Amino acid sequence: MTLISEHTETDTRERILVVAERLFRQLGYQKTTVADIAKELRMSPANVYRFFDSKKAIHEGVARALMGGVEDATEVIAAKRGSAASRLRELMTTIHRMNCERYVGDSKLHEMVEIAMEESWEVCVAHMERITHTIAAVIADGAASGEFEAPDVPLAAMCATTAMMRFFHPQMIAQCANKPGPSLDQMIDFVIAGLSPRSKAAGK
Amino acid sequence: MTLISEHTETDTRERILVVAERLFRQLGYQKTTVADIAKELRMSPANVYRFFDSKKAIHEGVARALMGGVEDATEVIAAKRGSAASRLRELMTTIHRMNCERYVGDSKLHEMVEIAMEESWEVCVAHMERITHTIAAVIADGAASGEFEAPDVPLAAMCATTAMMRFFHPQMIAQCANKPGPSLDQMIDFVIAGLSPRSKAAGK
Repeated sequence: MTLISEHTETDTRERILVVAERLFRQLGYQKTTVADIAKELRMSPANVYRFFDSKKAIHEGVARALMGGVEDATEVIAAKRGSAASRLRELMTTIHRMNCERYVGDSKLHEMVEIAMEESWEVCVAHMERITHTIAAVIADGAASGEFEAPDVPLAAMCATTAMMRFFHPQMIAQCANKPGPSLDQMIDFVIAGLSPRSKAAGK
Repeated sequence: MTLISEHTETDTRERILVVAERLFRQLGYQKTTVADIAKELRMSPANVYRFFDSKKAIHEGVARALMGGVEDATEVIAAKRGSAASRLRELMTTIHRMNCERYVGDSKLHEMVEIAMEESWEVCVAHMERITHTIAAVIADGAASGEFEAPDVPLAAMCATTAMMRFFHPQMIAQCANKPGPSLDQMIDFVIAGLSPRSKAAGK
């Protein structure tokens, strides 16, 4: 019976997050109350608080689920066959596309991202570290095969991720859309060039 | 007499901008009124309006002056002797340092930057274009000497500037300070690697 009860608890947690995300999208994060979420689920606010001790905790749960979707998608791409460069391109394109869909088209969710950046920075940092880790795995493959030149793989991954900020960071995607600058593919070309073996003549 | 009068007009314009910048730093942009600026200059608000038709126009003038300082400094560096890579490093370090000093340490000026980003985007775009143009000049030198490989110099300059967003963009400098990531020098190394001649074996 313990297993069933544990399963139900996980299930309730998930349902709270799904409903919360929907309400955050509909009403905005600030205007949604824990009572609204409880009402929608036909449970008492006290029951919601059994799972999440604050609205901030619910917000972090929703943010983690949204970010987790991007992390899962990138890990699937990293594990594919194919050249490191082509996987890196597909992976970076996917991050950009998913972050556009998730945060930019939707002004209410954009508000949620801004709050996450300010109040739950550690959730964002954990997400960026996981994405950087996946990018590092692809760069390590490329370095092993000679396709890339990266003596310090974790550093190369940090630089590659940082270089893509305009296309990865929700606030920058929103701010830079339709502004002068390189296209996504041009920027990925530049990053791949930065990882490619240099001729011996090139200095630092 | 026309020349003297023109000189005085330019002078008054400059004085308005200097006083406005000081008040924006002291009181914040929102709290500073055109009347405050006029009072400080011992002139009537109507006289200030002869030079700037709105507070927004004064704000743009102050922003242009602050950004112009960075543009001038980078152009001096671009015109120096030395390798393209060393000039690019000095130039990028200078942009980062000046933008840190100007916008990040000072929360009141940071407010001004946010308003500029929202309301006077064309001033920001003009600034970024001028910086990118200076970076392009250095990259073109490097491409001509064989130090860099950049078949499309304007594109290479846009990518190099975009890659440095974490270190150039006032809001990103503030948000990323003390957060995990590459150091300024490591990021510049990565950008220079992206511009360096690749070995023939390297694919796209």
